[in-house]
Amino acid sequence: MADLSTTPPLTRDSVVEAHKLVKPHVHLTPVLTNRTLSELASTPRTAEELAGTRWAGRTPARPVLRLWFKCENMQRVGAFKARGAFHAVERLKREPGWLDGGGKEKGVVTHSSGNHAAALALAARESGIKAHIVMPDISIPQKIAATKGYGANVVFSGSTSVEREAVAARVIADTGARLVPPYDHPDIMLGQGTMGLELQQQVADLMKPPAAAAEPRFRAAATGRDNAGPGKPGSVGLDAIMTPCGGGGMLSGVALSCEGTGIRVFGAEPMFQGADDGKRGYEAGARVPTVSSLTVADGLRTPVGAHPWSVIYERRLVAGMFGVTEDEIRAAMRLVLERFKMVVEPSGCVPLAVALFDEEFRGMVEREAGEDGWDLGLVFSGGNVGVDAIGRLFAEEKKE
Amino acid sequence: MADLSTTPPLTRDSVVEAHKLVKPHVHLTPVLTNRTLSELASTPRTAEELAGTRWAGRTPARPVLRLWFKCENMQRVGAFKARGAFHAVERLKREPGWLDGGGKEKGVVTHSSGNHAAALALAARESGIKAHIVMPDISIPQKIAATKGYGANVVFSGSTSVEREAVAARVIADTGARLVPPYDHPDIMLGQGTMGLELQQQVADLMKPPAAAAEPRFRAAATGRDNAGPGKPGSVGLDAIMTPCGGGGMLSGVALSCEGTGIRVFGAEPMFQGADDGKRGYEAGARVPTVSSLTVADGLRTPVGAHPWSVIYERRLVAGMFGVTEDEIRAAMRLVLERFKMVVEPSGCVPLAVALFDEEFRGMVEREAGEDGWDLGLVFSGGNVGVDAIGRLFAEEKKE
Repeated sequence: MADLSTTPPLTRDSVVEAHKLVKPHVHLTPVLTNRTLSELASTPRTAEELAGTRWAGRTPARPVLRLWFKCENMQRVGAFKARGAFHAVERLKREPGWLDGGGKEKGVVTHSSGNHAAALALAARESGIKAHIVMPDISIPQKIAATKGYGANVVFSGSTSVEREAVAARVIADTGARLVPPYDHPDIMLGQGTMGLELQQQVADLMKPPAAAAEPRFRAAATGRDNAGPGKPGSVGLDAIMTPCGGGGMLSGVALSCEGTGIRVFGAEPMFQGADDGKRGYEAGARVPTVSSLTVADGLRTPVGAHPWSVIYERRLVAGMFGVTEDEIRAAMRLVLERFKMVVEPSGCVPLAVALFDEEFRGMVEREAGEDGWDLGLVFSGGNVGVDAIGRLFAEEKKE
Repeated sequence: MADLSTTPPLTRDSVVEAHKLVKPHVHLTPVLTNRTLSELASTPRTAEELAGTRWAGRTPARPVLRLWFKCENMQRVGAFKARGAFHAVERLKREPGWLDGGGKEKGVVTHSSGNHAAALALAARESGIKAHIVMPDISIPQKIAATKGYGANVVFSGSTSVEREAVAARVIADTGARLVPPYDHPDIMLGQGTMGLELQQQVADLMKPPAAAAEPRFRAAATGRDNAGPGKPGSVGLDAIMTPCGGGGMLSGVALSCEGTGIRVFGAEPMFQGADDGKRGYEAGARVPTVSSLTVADGLRTPVGAHPWSVIYERRLVAGMFGVTEDEIRAAMRLVLERFKMVVEPSGCVPLAVALFDEEFRGMVEREAGEDGWDLGLVFSGGNVGVDAIGRLFAEEKKE
């Protein structure tokens, strides 16, 4: 990883610079809408639905939400992690002396539960750099296979962060490889933030009426958007964006991409076994440094890192954090599969679960936006869940 | 259904007119690309892969294919059938005397195994027209629930076409409802053909380089397209389109939408238990009037209708028909789920299965297109397959 002293400042301009570096390597993923999900999000929940939940007895909120989905599940390696990994590698290649010092042969190393591993393996391979990936031996087989498929040297470890870091340290000692952490580094945050720039621009483009032309034409490209026309009167883009929050690399990067734009940014977490460390820390005023959760949202089991925290909380670039239950995550994922026809891993469905089920969030939208409502961008952060795992997830749903 | 004597001629212009009628009611579904699938389609199969198949011992074909997917799985009701149903209803409303004669109260009726049923129910409801849907009592629960959810009167029948038609005839005698058949009618064909117009225009738009502008801009809207740039030199659109073929409504409609454009149109069918009636009829020079197949591609179990046949075969607007095995359909569906992150029902994966696995088709592309290859549009025709059904489909795969 590029030395911290050489990293760019954490600003929107730095995200723009990062985008220039990663653009040739990553997909411009689609932004799609879905009428059913926007209607569901804009329908008050019933008293019956709230009974037995943490909102029992409350008057159901009446938010108006037009949802725009950034489909990073269609990103290379199936997840947004490609952005941070390519950015880290491109920055490393530009670090004075790294290439000349045999950097490609020494390689890069990381410890990751999955998507970051595959992403770094791919980014390294495309530059002819060796990649050593330390993975917990309980990682799902598809993710191990994908990582090996990208030509990486997979080194197994135990699943605690202490065990993984010890193995990574040994690899570094043996090879001279440079550590590329999964989220707690400015280069990763800036890389992930590039999706925020695209999302802002894509939604603004999609909201524009079709250009006046001599003959009738189709709306520019392919949106899946219904024909109800653009957002609220006078609207020129998103009102807010919500992303999943695990280590906080994506959330902080997207928050940077929105600085000064007036677009509010929110983070979404699973509550199970305390995985909502970001929310708890945000409310208590201090980062929660450790988490031990086996939430189904397996990409979000990590605590927020120190660098992301500085952006999320200390600079207040994130306007609020929200948490949802395992059932709510599964319900959102089922809707995404059956109504949106998209495969999104559980972690990627957490923001939608907040928009559909979290009365705290929904009440805030009602109060702040009234009848105009919000155009809300939600990030489908990844899609790496196999057919078998889908079956297991919903079998568990039945057992509960 | 509008009387045959009043239907427009089967021409591309009529598809353009149909598009004006259905456009306010249906989604402009996205056109997406996927690097992995295009690379797979452009990779020669190995001798080992061909061993044990009907292509054993052949020299593997070396086609170059750039795939463009029309995502009708994201259409209203989750399938392209919305297009034909809305067109049929809009035409019926314009038939002299139908509305004045109490048409809305008399209603419409159809017999359908699923997607057409939901589509007609929705189209009827949006115009305040009663809908009677005759469904086989073995239809999958989600499809029955969806149809009832659209406010239709569901009438169950046995599953043979004779049984279904008898029940429909009784409904007509009782209510005066007008029959809207699932595919064998010009209004349905013209309605389904509207996706062909959109696909042609969307791909042409996406192939255009970004407009020159003062500041760097993003590619128009959301494509999911990789950054490899547009298709072959001088290309301005698709070379060919392939759609699934059951009753032939979609295939014939899309063929009409391409007439005179130079875009070749192909049909894709399951071979299981003779469901490739279109292909067999095409080769024998006579329509096969009956089919009895339980292929996993449950939308394609019907024989090609007489009206579609006139377009597909008699007018030679379809350039060829291709058939694939059940295993090939399931393999294509798994790739779509796991690599493209899209939920597409088995019927909708049949054209992709042809592009990936059918050496006849692949050899033809190699011969005709050489190194330039083809830009090939494939229709993801529907996405109505529940989470449970996905589990069952791939459990069957393991047993075999």
